[in-house]
This record gives sequence, structure tokens and C-alpha cells, in this order.
Amino acid sequence: MRRVVVIGGGSSAGAPAAFTAKAFYKDASVTLIKREEKTLVPCGIPYVFGTLKGVDDNVFSNERYEKRGVSLVIDEATKINRERKVVRTASGREIPYDKLVLATGSSSIKPPIEGIDLKNVFFVEKDYEYIRRFLEALGGKKKVVIIGGGFIGVELGDELRKRGLEVSIVELMPHCLQAAFDDEFCELAETKLRERGIKIFTGCKVESILGDGEGRVRGVRLDGGDVLDADVVVVAVGLKKEVSLATDAGLEVDERYGVVVDEYQRTSDEDIFAVGDCAFKRSFFTKKPSMIMLAPVGSYEARIAGANLFEPRRRNEGVIGTFSTAVGDLALAASGLTERVARAEGIRYVVGSVEIPDKHPPTMPGIRRIKMKLMFDAKTETLIGGQLSGSYVVGEIANIIATMIRKKMTVDEVATAQVGTHPLLTAPPAFYHITQAAEDARAKL
Amino acid sequence: MRRVVVIGGGSSAGAPAAFTAKAFYKDASVTLIKREEKTLVPCGIPYVFGTLKGVDDNVFSNERYEKRGVSLVIDEATKINRERKVVRTASGREIPYDKLVLATGSSSIKPPIEGIDLKNVFFVEKDYEYIRRFLEALGGKKKVVIIGGGFIGVELGDELRKRGLEVSIVELMPHCLQAAFDDEFCELAETKLRERGIKIFTGCKVESILGDGEGRVRGVRLDGGDVLDADVVVVAVGLKKEVSLATDAGLEVDERYGVVVDEYQRTSDEDIFAVGDCAFKRSFFTKKPSMIMLAPVGSYEARIAGANLFEPRRRNEGVIGTFSTAVGDLALAASGLTERVARAEGIRYVVGSVEIPDKHPPTMPGIRRIKMKLMFDAKTETLIGGQLSGSYVVGEIANIIATMIRKKMTVDEVATAQVGTHPLLTAPPAFYHITQAAEDARAKL
Repeated sequence: MRRVVVIGGGSSAGAPAAFTAKAFYKDASVTLIKREEKTLVPCGIPYVFGTLKGVDDNVFSNERYEKRGVSLVIDEATKINRERKVVRTASGREIPYDKLVLATGSSSIKPPIEGIDLKNVFFVEKDYEYIRRFLEALGGKKKVVIIGGGFIGVELGDELRKRGLEVSIVELMPHCLQAAFDDEFCELAETKLRERGIKIFTGCKVESILGDGEGRVRGVRLDGGDVLDADVVVVAVGLKKEVSLATDAGLEVDERYGVVVDEYQRTSDEDIFAVGDCAFKRSFFTKKPSMIMLAPVGSYEARIAGANLFEPRRRNEGVIGTFSTAVGDLALAASGLTERVARAEGIRYVVGSVEIPDKHPPTMPGIRRIKMKLMFDAKTETLIGGQLSGSYVVGEIANIIATMIRKKMTVDEVATAQVGTHPLLTAPPAFYHITQAAEDARAKL
Repeated sequence: MRRVVVIGGGSSAGAPAAFTAKAFYKDASVTLIKREEKTLVPCGIPYVFGTLKGVDDNVFSNERYEKRGVSLVIDEATKINRERKVVRTASGREIPYDKLVLATGSSSIKPPIEGIDLKNVFFVEKDYEYIRRFLEALGGKKKVVIIGGGFIGVELGDELRKRGLEVSIVELMPHCLQAAFDDEFCELAETKLRERGIKIFTGCKVESILGDGEGRVRGVRLDGGDVLDADVVVVAVGLKKEVSLATDAGLEVDERYGVVVDEYQRTSDEDIFAVGDCAFKRSFFTKKPSMIMLAPVGSYEARIAGANLFEPRRRNEGVIGTFSTAVGDLALAASGLTERVARAEGIRYVVGSVEIPDKHPPTMPGIRRIKMKLMFDAKTETLIGGQLSGSYVVGEIANIIATMIRKKMTVDEVATAQVGTHPLLTAPPAFYHITQAAEDARAKL
């Protein structure tokens, strides 16, 4: 019997890799090795602090493995022996494989800031026990400073505010969420954060984390000397790829971009695949290496690797990058390139912009406005990016845009999208946001 | 100066044809001729009976024309003189054109049923004054029978129920909404209608509409003899294409499918275009004539015709057909072929089905399930249809499916869609509805 082993039980990469492998190769045994009994759903972690009832509300059920015929081993993979094709575990087991998938993920960057080891300084680790302790530590606390205004920092800030904490976010860049959005959308998010009572310090560097003399955190000192008081500090400045198993096994690993894979997700060893945060990625647009680490990208790669284990069937076309998030009742989403990135890459582009209600006619109760911009390559006239904000429906609208980007649809194809519309559900047919934004861009090309 | 004239002020075809013409040919004068001062938004008509405050909440603003540089003529176009290239109006004006767009739309079919002319028998006409009178006539009424369980009948029934009326729907076919959905989705809609207290009589033919002896309606007699009492009867059994201007002008008109046009929306006279309900359509899939009449299809054709007036720039690829609707808090949407149609066309297909939460993790407050099926051509493995139900977000999810259908995406491409996901906004990354449904179909191919 053919044996497939997956290392890493993340719900977005390891799990779908195992499920896809089992779906494509029904005769194969599929074993998944993961360190902890209880695995958190990574994107749900900020929400255990406010919207959900706690950490147990955000656990990826192990029953799913059983239901799909995947054997589960709760243990730590400590070494891959490529010659003998076995994985050794911390408990001393040896698990043989014909094909191996690495989905070892990422962990929080621990920047070398003075005071980072103080008590009540936390990271947003994908670790049940750690997050449980973090949540527990919030009891009786009042002031939180979050270092890092990316998705995780912003979402966590919003959720901690729901608990009634006083929240400050410190971001090094000129704007929060700057990796995904251009300035005008970042500003919408920042305005909403401020409306919700969150203090934002952008363009600010943290000089040090301050202790109270008894090992507990008491605040954060910014470059320039200002001090923000804090009972709790959260550090969310980015992710580090977990590649030590691959490196130790002698696989080709890029120091910055992770375990090197080809378009079939194969590593330098043809019997070993890598998917998710730990794996090397390329941009859909420039084919250059990409630092994007996102749950749905992990799932995308997992569906490719799982299908390709014993024969090449699916190809990775490069990462488009589609994000969505919410601050209070405002959702924001983006797909593809931002203007900032396009400029840096020297890509000439044209922007179409609209603000359109999400229902129709304009008198419809509960109506909200969707603000959208689409970017088209000025030379090829194909869609290369989109950003939007509005009600929660923008999360799925971004997936229409992502699909159009992937299929390299031209401005005229986008302007003549064959969509469905309905008064209670969507923008009006003659002023549908995506087609209107494309017509706006068309007029500038 | 080049002169463009559009006949028909419908918000979904005439208006976007005029706006697109003006956007593409800025130097041209664009004049739109429409019969009434106040034009209703067609898809909004059922909603003036419940959700909106009345008929004035559903008027397409004439200011939009002025804002976009389109001249408005409130008058009835009575004759097209193709030799002299002028449109004559009821008030005796002659309006010259270089290019003419017909967007004359459709009106309600008035079937030859006994009693159809009785007082308080209404149609769902796209006519402000008519709908205002209809609404007024509901005062003091208790029982409504709707003949026809298509979109308009179902939506109107749901809205009249919101007003507290007792509503019955009589449908000739085995199911309501059968033109757009397969049985299992029709049944979901019917169950929801019944939950909302609406009586449904499917597979039932109306024999006659009964009068009270004084010219007012008092009920409906079904084939077989059962009588449904009614103070008001609404007849919503379909639409008739308004083609008399085109026929009188000697343009090629198909008796059933309307004003014949090519893929550039040109009629048999190269200076006259036709768009929307009045225009001939072909199926995207079979290239056969199609009876689909939908607002967004009109807008699609308007964007094509408007761009092509003085040079061919955009092509009609055929109608995919994407619908969405809501019954109470349940939304339903569909794009492309149903199983029923695929079978009738002799297309071999495979279905992938899922039920997936619309947020994640499954503990997320306010979570709802999305039921979805996707159909793939068994030979080419391309996506040819999708149906789904759930929260209101399914309206935009159907537009992802419509885009995938249009780009003829294969089951493997759909399964590896590069989407964005978020706990509050979408299904989880590893179990995203569309990719999961594609994987389910993949396993059957």
C-alpha cells in the first residue's frame, strides 16, 4: 500500500493536503503528524478574544480526520530520514512514507526589542495552550499596547476593544494594513478603529518594552521618548517560516522565502512536497519570490500538492493574494497588486474607482455603500488588482475580482461581466460595482 | 455632430446603453426617448409592496441623465423612418439619428383566461401609474391569489405577506422557480414560502378567474374545480417582448425571440441596435435562441451596444443567465445551466454538492449554512452551472460562479480557486464552498 505522510496539522495547509491526498489516492494510507491534541483555526485566533466565547470555540475538530480516513499521530516530527524514507518523532516512533508533505507553517517573529521577555508580553501564536494562557492573563487588565498594525494586530485590537480594554496600536509604517491596501483604504480602516476608541500610532518605532521592576510589563517606549502605559503588550510584527525539519533533512531552503518548491509543490526531493507558510511562493504577476503567508494560499497549495503526490496533475500559477478583514461593521478586502507594489515593480496601470450601494434602489432599508477601485495593466489592459470596503459582503466580492485577475480578464471583459443582481442582495444591474469600476478605467485607457 | 438616439428608458437596458454611448463617444449627442416621466426600477417593483415605503421609493432618477450628458425626451416613439433616419413621436416631433438603439423592453403576458379583465385583477407592469393604482387597490383587501410562481410571483407573494395579506400562489409547473432551479432548490424556496404562511398550489392550472357579478374579482377556479377566494388576483405568468416599432420599421424580428441582432447587438439595419428584453438572445452554452429576460442581461447588452455604435469593440458571448432572489431570510441564486436543461440538451455532466457554513469557525455567532451544487461538463470538465442557497451573501457568490462559467474554468481550476477568506465574512479556507463542491465533482469524473 502506498503511504502518504503529512507533517503539520494546521487547518489551512496540513489538513487539506491530507484530505486532498486521500480523495485523489483512495488506496493510499494517509497519516498526519501534529504536535498538539488541540489545533487552533489560525484565522479565528483574534476572535477568541471577543466575538467567540473562548479558545475552545476555535479548535479544528480531530474528528474530521477520522471521517475522511486520515490517521492521526499526535507527536512531534523531529527528523526526516530521506534515505530510509521515514519520519522520526519525539516519542521515538518511526513513520515510513512513500510521499511526504511538509506543512510546518510559521510562528511569530520575536524581534530583538529590550523587554520582549517580560511577563504579560504576548505573541499571537498558533498554539492552544499559549492562547489559553494569554486569554487568562487578560483578566483584570485595562491597557493593551499592540506592536504591529497588520491584519492580526488590527483584528486583535478590534476584538480586545470588544472586551472593554483600552487599546493602542503602534505601527512602524505610515499606515495600518499597508501590506494589503493603498492609503485611502488604510485610512478608512484607521478612521473606523479610532471611532471604536482605539488609539493608533503610525510611523512609530518601538524603542523598548518597559518593565515594572518586578518582571512585569508596564509600558512601551516609542522612538522619541513617548511612553504608552500597558498591562499587556502584544507583539504582532510578522511571521517566521518554520523550516528547520527541511533544512536538517538537506532539502533546498531559501533563507527568506522558505522551502523551495516547483510549480507542482515538489521540493528538491521529488518524494517530498511543501505547502503553506513554510513553502516558497512566487507572485502570480511578476513570478518573483513572494512573502505572502495566508491561510487560503496554504489551502490552494495543499489542493495542488495533494493531487500531485503520485502524478503531476495541478500546477501552481503563483500567488495572487486575496485578503479580507473587518473592523467593527466595516469590511475591507483586496486582491492582487496594490498601486504601491505596481509602482515599485514599474508596472504602468490605470485605476477605475466607484462608490456604489450594496442593494438597490437607493431607498432600500439597511443599504450600505461599497467603495471599490480596480487596477488594470495599461499595456495588456488586464485586471491586476482590486480593493474594496463596505458591508461584510465585500469578502465574497473580492473573490469575484480574484477570479477575474486569475483569468487575466481585460477591462472590456470585466466591464461586460455577466452577473446576477437583486434588490435585496446586490448593487443594481446598470451600476454594478465591478462593471462600473471597469468602465471608469476604460475611459482612462 | 454624431447623433445617438435610444428608445426606452428602462434602468437596466435603455439607460446604460445611453450612458455607455456617451462614455465611448464623448463628442456625440445622446438623446433618450421614454414614455413616462417617472420610470420604475423593474427588479424593485415587488419590493414597493412590502419592504419599500411605496412606489416613489422605486423610481429611477432622471437626474442621472443630465449628470451624464444625456438629453431626455419624455414622449412616445411611434415610428422609425429608416430612410430619413428619424424617430417620430406621439407629440409629432421628429428626432434624427445616426445610430439608434432599441430598448423597448417587455410587458406582462395577458393570458386568455376567462375573467382576466375583472376589476382587481392586476399584472406586474413596469409602469409607475399602474403600480401606484395596484398598490392603492390593496387597501382593505385580505386575500390575494398570484397566478405564476416564477421570480416575480414568488417575490411579490413574499412582499404581500409582509403587508399581512393572505397569499396563495398557483403555478402550472411542478415547482415554483423551476425555470432557474432544480427541484431540491425549488423545494427549499417552497418550504420557506409555506413557513411564511403562503399557500402554494403547484402543478395546478387556472381554469378561470371568477367575478362577483358586479365586475369585481372574487376568486380563482382551478382545473378540477377547486376555488380559491380572492379580493385581488395577480397574473405573473411571463413577459412578452415589445417589438412593434421594430416590426413596423421592417427590421428582422423573430416572432418568439424578438428583434434579431448579431453578436455586436446590430439589427438587420447596421445603424440600429437592440438591447434588453426586446432583443434576440443566444445561450452561452448551446448558442441556441434563449428566452431569458433579465435586467443584468439587458445591462450586459447595453454595455456592448453602447461601445459598438460607431465601431465594433465588444462582442456578446451569449447569455449565461445568473439569477438571485430571496424568500424571507433565505436567498437563492443560480448561474448557467440547470440539470433539467442539461438533460434536455443531451449534455453529460457531473454534479458536486456541499453544505458549508458562511463564516468560520462553526461556533461563529450568526453563522448560516450555504447549500451549493456545481455542474461540470463530463467531457470538457468545464463548469456549466451552479445553484446555491443560504444567507444574502449567496447573491455575490453566484457572481463568482458566473465568472468561472464564462471563463470556461475546469474542475481542477475551480477546485484551486485563489480566494480570500475571513472568519466573519466567508467559509473557511480549507472548506470554501466553491472549491469543495469542485473537489466533490472531481472525485466523480
